[in-house]
Order: sequence, then structure tokens, then C-alpha cells
Amino acid sequence: MAAEPQSPGRRPTLALVGATGAVGTVMLSLLDERPDVWGEIRLVASARSAGKTLKVRGEDVVVRALAPEVFDGVDIAMFDVPDEVSAQWAPVAAERGAIAVDNSGAFRMDADVPLVVPEVNADALADRPRGIISNPNCTTLSMIVAVGALHREFGLESLFATSYQAASGAGQAGIDTLYDQLENVGGRRELGQTAGDVRKTIGEDALGPFPAPLALNVVPWAGSLKDGGWSSEELKIRNESRKILGMPALRVSATCVRVPVVTTHAVAVHARFARPVSAKEARAVLTGAPGVAVLDDPANGQFPTPADVVGTDPTWVGRIRQSPDDPHEVALFVCGDNLRKGAALNTLQIAETLVARGLV
Amino acid sequence: MAAEPQSPGRRPTLALVGATGAVGTVMLSLLDERPDVWGEIRLVASARSAGKTLKVRGEDVVVRALAPEVFDGVDIAMFDVPDEVSAQWAPVAAERGAIAVDNSGAFRMDADVPLVVPEVNADALADRPRGIISNPNCTTLSMIVAVGALHREFGLESLFATSYQAASGAGQAGIDTLYDQLENVGGRRELGQTAGDVRKTIGEDALGPFPAPLALNVVPWAGSLKDGGWSSEELKIRNESRKILGMPALRVSATCVRVPVVTTHAVAVHARFARPVSAKEARAVLTGAPGVAVLDDPANGQFPTPADVVGTDPTWVGRIRQSPDDPHEVALFVCGDNLRKGAALNTLQIAETLVARGLV
Repeated sequence: MAAEPQSPGRRPTLALVGATGAVGTVMLSLLDERPDVWGEIRLVASARSAGKTLKVRGEDVVVRALAPEVFDGVDIAMFDVPDEVSAQWAPVAAERGAIAVDNSGAFRMDADVPLVVPEVNADALADRPRGIISNPNCTTLSMIVAVGALHREFGLESLFATSYQAASGAGQAGIDTLYDQLENVGGRRELGQTAGDVRKTIGEDALGPFPAPLALNVVPWAGSLKDGGWSSEELKIRNESRKILGMPALRVSATCVRVPVVTTHAVAVHARFARPVSAKEARAVLTGAPGVAVLDDPANGQFPTPADVVGTDPTWVGRIRQSPDDPHEVALFVCGDNLRKGAALNTLQIAETLVARGLV
Repeated sequence: MAAEPQSPGRRPTLALVGATGAVGTVMLSLLDERPDVWGEIRLVASARSAGKTLKVRGEDVVVRALAPEVFDGVDIAMFDVPDEVSAQWAPVAAERGAIAVDNSGAFRMDADVPLVVPEVNADALADRPRGIISNPNCTTLSMIVAVGALHREFGLESLFATSYQAASGAGQAGIDTLYDQLENVGGRRELGQTAGDVRKTIGEDALGPFPAPLALNVVPWAGSLKDGGWSSEELKIRNESRKILGMPALRVSATCVRVPVVTTHAVAVHARFARPVSAKEARAVLTGAPGVAVLDDPANGQFPTPADVVGTDPTWVGRIRQSPDDPHEVALFVCGDNLRKGAALNTLQIAETLVARGLV
């Protein structure tokens, strides 16, 4: 999704709100790596972080405090901040004339805000009544590029998704908690034999952002409790997939589970399509799909794992199988770096696509 | 499933083949804990382990070497040994007049060998033309008691199962490999940022029985490669569920994934039934089902996790939800100790049920 500027004479101004956070840090390295289509790049953060100096494209840039004036003259403002900060400030950026591209959950289900994955529904960028565009949740993003590619070809009918979500999905606190817990339990070979041993060794005070121990464990919970016992993370996969694919009645059922992995979400996908789909056909479509990398040769131990693909851009797909019971059903194992494609990268791709399509 | 002896005057003789292995060790502690219905308990192992002394019901018992004569006078012989050992020796035990209860994969799909989970299909014990009864695979066993209870009430139509399988499913080598890898990567906070870092730190020589690093990772593979890219473990879930439930055409689709947990397999289940099933109805059925423990109050952080339930007997069920898109579909998160109910416990329950029903 590399983009070329539309008018070389005037490169657009980009603001990065939340420049000092975990996703903001990944964004700065992406801005160094990718084709540079930007004029000024303005860094913005909370008053607490204002005044710091960060390197952007090899040059020192001073971080400015979030205020209405920082959006003056900005073409695109990317927000990597908590929901409540986005809810307050993205409309301010839009009022000042910027297009706000928001990575929080504040606007994703707003009917007047497009929810965009450039490989899947870039056309939705054109219609943005509030001047705001939303970036999907990291778990949705870890699989939707692959699912969208198959949908275009075979017509998606229903989707089962169960996640293997990394600790960094809960931010730096999630990463620190996992490492702290691993230091406690890592060498204790007697653990895992009796109920509660891991919990006692870790201690209830050291659970961090997770509702149960994560080291030597998996935790079937992410987000907050919603109607019917569903977690907010599970409903995000359902509702966001429907919106991105433009299928408001799509059947989606998800179970979200946190696993002791630092970075990269994995998702086991079982999808049913209107047409029969062989594994070979699915593999061919995925191999040709933008943003997808296929790694599917289990005879030689080749399939994506989180630790092997972290730090890379594509949505990795392996374990491509046709159901022996239903020729319309395909199973996949998908991995995507939750801090790159799952957050910073998709946000930047949206911004680049706005430029490439002359929508700025 | 505690059993009372049918004829107090003559208690049956039990042989435990594979007494010195990982599952055999769990079996010995189960024999201490559970109501004692046995006369002589004979311990059998390979010639290498013969002559060792182990405690059974508080008394020293000398391990005998596997030979045809050890089965003379035995009523029930439980086998916790590799497939090829069972394939050779279970028929020998049957010839000598014992009922062989086999925990290997050697006979599970043999039409003349019942595959039994006492809470689900104990009636199948009566018809055993070869004198052999099979114990299901540990992953099937981790979920089938819960699924079977719902099936009896609501009529199962299709099943999606994705696993979070513990390292001990690959035996002691699996446990050792996970701990060794955790010692290498546990404190290295820089890991997880770049593709391949975890693999490089662990080293290709230290993968043990797994095809990729398991520490700080998940591995979407268990077993051997079968037709269509399916793993043997995934097909076992399908084929064994069909046989245990007596539904040869049941639609089952599974993805099996190894996670860095020592013991207890977890399975995310999405099941469709002939009748609509509310979460409340499913919860009521599961709460009353033998061998099932319900732990389902996410508002208070209550759901089963592997580390919290290891070492316990029941199949633990939480996260019980009705699909918002299909009232016939229920989602569950299930945990079962793969060394107890998933192996030793179910084998012993089969033996106890044979006694209780007067089938010995």
C-alpha cells in the first residue's frame, strides 16, 4: 500500500497524536521505513510528555502538547490514544480542517465514521461526514485482510474466530506483567501439577491488567463484560467484521483468549462461503492477495507462529484446510502483529491511501 | 463415577501396564484417592523398569516385566503405553482372559472396540468383541463430557473446536522442553519485537517434540500430517467425537494449537443444536451433568483457566454464551486436566464401571 504524493509541490502535513505511547513508537519507526509522502510531521502528546524530543525521519522533532491549535494546517491527524482522549480531540482536529484517523474504539461503530482496512474497503474512505476515519480493533485486524480476500472471491456466509491474543494487546502493562510472572514461575518445575499453584506463586497482586495468571496459562477473557456473557473483544470481532465487509447480517461467533505471548495475535478461523472452496483455491487467492503472506507447508513444519512473524507487516496465513464434512467451509490459522498491522501500520496505510487517492 | 464392587467376596484383579510412565504415575495416585474396589493390583512395565518397587495403596509392589504370563488371573488390564506396545500386548491380555482398557491410539477407530467415556456412553462397554476397550485422545476427552451432556438434551448438529493444548500432552519431553525454553527466554524483555528472536534465543536444537518454539509462542500443530493438511490430532477430535456420541455423520471441524502451559488442555467450543438453546438452559444442563463443573461468572473474573484447574477431576466449563446470530448455537470455554480425565482418570473410570455393572 505504498503511496505516491498527488501534488509533489505540496506535501501534506501529518500530525501524530500519542507519539510517545507504545503504538506511537511503532509508528515513528514505520515513518522511517516507508516511502515518505509527508511534508511536516508534527508530534503531539499529553502535556506531561510535551517538550520531549523524538527522532522523525532522522531529525529531531519536539513533542507539542495536545491543544486545538496544534491541528491548524494539519491535513491528516493520526490518533493513538485512549478512547476518551480520541472522543474529545478527534472532533477538534476535524473542526480545524484535518482528517482524523483514529485508532481508538471511540468512533468505530458510528454510522457516520468509516471503519477502514485499505486492502479490504478503501472505497469507504471517500464518505466521512464527521471528518473522522476509524481504525479497527487489533484482533479484527489480525485476520480481516485474509478473510476479506476470501470473501471477495467466494462470498462469506459465516465466521467462527477464536483468538490467541498477545500480552501487548493490553499495552506496556501487559508486557511487563507477563515478564514479571515468567520470572516467578519460569524455573519452578513442580508447578502445573496442582490447581492454584501458578496463581499462588504469582500472587493475586501481580495479575496486572489480566483477570488471572497469564504465565503458564491461558485466560479466556479480553475487554469488558457485555450482554449475554460476551466480552467486548468478542463483539468487536463480530461488529467490526460486519462493518468492514459491508455485511450487516453476517453470522460471526468469536471466543477471545489471552495467551502468554509478547506480541502478535493469532486467530483460528473457520469460515463458510456461498461457493465450495478447495484448500488449493483458497491458497491461490490468499497468495495473490495484497497484505497477505501464505506460509503453509506443515510437512516441513511451515506455518505461521506469533514469535516467528512479530515485527513484520503482512497478515500471515497457514494451515489452510477444506472441511471434510462441508465443501463450503475453510479453516485457517492467521497471525498478525497486533502493534503493526493491528494498530500503527493500518492507521498509517489509511493516511497514505487518503494521499494516494487525492482525498486530502 | 465411584464404583462399588459387585461381589464383595471376590475383588477383581487389576493390572496396570506402563506403571512407571507419566500417566501411570497419575494412575497410582488416583488408585490411592478413589474408593478401592480392587483385589490384587499388579504393576507391569518394560523389562528396563521391571524390579522397581512402587507404592500402591500404601504398600510396596514390585514392577513386573511385560510378558504373557503377567495377565494370567487378571480381570482388567489398563494400558498406558505407546501405540505400538498396546497394539502388540492388549490382544495378548485379552487372550489370557483379561479385559484390556487401552489408553493408546491403537484401537480407537476399530469397529470392534468400543471407545468409552463413562459419563457419555457407558452402555457401549457391554459389547466388546475383541475384549479390548479404548480410552479416547486427551483433547477429545477435555471437552466431550460437556458436549455430550448438551447433546443428550438439545441434539448436537455441528461442532467447532479449537484447542489450547498443554505441553504435557507431548509427555515428559514436552514439559522439560517448555521449562528449558522458558529459562532461556523468560527474562529477556527485548524479545518478541522482531521476527525470529525467540527462535534464535531458544535455538533449533532445543525445540524438543514441538515443530516451533513453545515458550512465548503458540504452535498450530499437534500430531502427524493427514490428508488435506489436517493434523492427526484434529481428525481424532472429529472421528472420536463421532464414535463416542454415536453420530457417524456429525459435522466436526477442529484446529489444534499447542500453548505454553504445563498441564490441562483447554478447548473453545462453538456447537449448534437441533433445538434453540439459551445460555441459561445450557448452564442448567451442564450444572447437573456428571463429571462437569461450571465456573461461569465473568463479572467476577470466574471462568476456568488451565493453571487453576490442573490436578482436578471434572471437565470445567465457563464462558457459556448463546450466539446473538443463531439461537441454536452455544459457545463454551472448557478445561480438562489432560493427564487425569484426559488419560488416567477416564481409563480407571472405565475399569470401575465394568466392575460396578458386573461386566467383569
